[in-house]
Amino acid sequence: MKDKIVVALGGNALGKTPKEQLELVKKTAKPIVDLISEGHELVIAHGNGPQVGMINLAFSKNDPQMPFPECGAMSQGYIGYHLQNAIREELLNRDMKQKVATVITQVIVDKEDKAFENPTKPIGAFYTKEEADELEKTKGFSMKEDAGRGYRRVVPSPLPVDVAEKEIVKTLVENDHIVITVGGGGIPVIEEGNTLVGVPAVIDKDFASEKMAEILDADYLIILTAVEKVAINFGKENEKWLDEISIAECEKYIEEGHFAPGSMLPKVQAAMKFANSKKGAKALITSLEKASDGIKGLTGTVIVNK
Amino acid sequence: MKDKIVVALGGNALGKTPKEQLELVKKTAKPIVDLISEGHELVIAHGNGPQVGMINLAFSKNDPQMPFPECGAMSQGYIGYHLQNAIREELLNRDMKQKVATVITQVIVDKEDKAFENPTKPIGAFYTKEEADELEKTKGFSMKEDAGRGYRRVVPSPLPVDVAEKEIVKTLVENDHIVITVGGGGIPVIEEGNTLVGVPAVIDKDFASEKMAEILDADYLIILTAVEKVAINFGKENEKWLDEISIAECEKYIEEGHFAPGSMLPKVQAAMKFANSKKGAKALITSLEKASDGIKGLTGTVIVNK
Repeated sequence: MKDKIVVALGGNALGKTPKEQLELVKKTAKPIVDLISEGHELVIAHGNGPQVGMINLAFSKNDPQMPFPECGAMSQGYIGYHLQNAIREELLNRDMKQKVATVITQVIVDKEDKAFENPTKPIGAFYTKEEADELEKTKGFSMKEDAGRGYRRVVPSPLPVDVAEKEIVKTLVENDHIVITVGGGGIPVIEEGNTLVGVPAVIDKDFASEKMAEILDADYLIILTAVEKVAINFGKENEKWLDEISIAECEKYIEEGHFAPGSMLPKVQAAMKFANSKKGAKALITSLEKASDGIKGLTGTVIVNK
Repeated sequence: MKDKIVVALGGNALGKTPKEQLELVKKTAKPIVDLISEGHELVIAHGNGPQVGMINLAFSKNDPQMPFPECGAMSQGYIGYHLQNAIREELLNRDMKQKVATVITQVIVDKEDKAFENPTKPIGAFYTKEEADELEKTKGFSMKEDAGRGYRRVVPSPLPVDVAEKEIVKTLVENDHIVITVGGGGIPVIEEGNTLVGVPAVIDKDFASEKMAEILDADYLIILTAVEKVAINFGKENEKWLDEISIAECEKYIEEGHFAPGSMLPKVQAAMKFANSKKGAKALITSLEKASDGIKGLTGTVIVNK
């Protein structure tokens, strides 16, 4: 059975330097091509935290500074280039004919999103208190103290509303191409009439992947993480790994505070949203290495709307 | 009559800073959308000289340095993001339904290309003689003195052999999407078995556009430049603007040294190559503003194989 699958790769699937990334994407490509070789249609999303941070930092001395959405666009090109080549090579090594492409992708957010009132995502370089005050005054940045390490710019994390390049991605998927899209959660843009205006923000890549999975009418959303399954009481004596969670159970566990904000919580929330989006939609949370087994029902945590 | 057209945008169609680029692409979008509104299928290529230079420079203090092909990948994301939005907006302003996408594009070069023996293209920052010697020794860079302004790294400019993402671009064109591709002449890669390996090089964007036009079986290659027509005796008293040039005439004019290397010469050579590639292939050299008139036969210089 051929499933349409959106895979959201975590930051651990990529690397912190060009050299490290070039090595890591080779490992990342194998389980992805396993899924393709099993007959599934793959759409690949990925994070860009360390990479866009590196790019933002490189331009931090530029005046005027490189805007953050432009840094995101650069990170999509940079990551996509390595990732598509690793997948291409793995496909060719197995005599498979699929082609792979990176599409520069913008995700539309609502300018009325409450997140814009409370920027929370730290990006880029660390500054002293004096530099931070200066940046707040001269550039209008929001600066926050970051765990005793200095001050950093914070940007909002609004929810994805739509994907500007959705028709492009659809066409490629329909023609059996493998697409890398919504890199880093997509370049965040708001609609001003017919204009898309980039905004300094970070869209959660799991939520962006979920949006893309809905748009593509996918069968599966796979959210990859460092662990094989979701747990309740994680790291405690009564830790319990979960095979399947219903929406109601998810809500109960979230209420009880089992999932860490900024880590497992958004993954579970994105998975719930997809499971809720249509009959038969399945969301799987597992590790990269176990993705293929997870799709076969052998491992991972499945979130379903029962 | 619906023609398939590959347009190669010159550096003057973009800008040197993000802000300048965002303004300039709006002007660039109008003549492009004119061509689309006249029923033509458009594929858009562009240079990246100032942009990849800016990116390379931002990373010049990084150790290890950001490799040059990765900088090229970033420049495709950065330029494509602005250019596709400007075209999207112009399309929407005219109630047109086409979608536009940027595809990260690699151009395959021959590792035996003679250009690798003689790097000529200066890139990135200026260095002192001492720094240049150090970079030659420690990084194996080729460094050359640049017009009294200091030392710069030089990279080879090999000819394009193939486009790695050609099937992706074909699919999008066949489905009436507007594609931005081979940005900056493409990310230069060589084939090592099943692996594509990025190489520090600059592929001439007019030659890369010509290769793409051949691959797509295009009707027209439009090479945009600062002037409306090609001239012989350019800037002299007996300057003569040309409406149409045959291959034989092109060869004669090149022989006589009418076209400046690194400027009009590669444009004429790319145009000749395309005109020679198949019966009915037409190459047009004109300015961005005159592109639509040029396609109607009202201006510009057409290179044809008669």
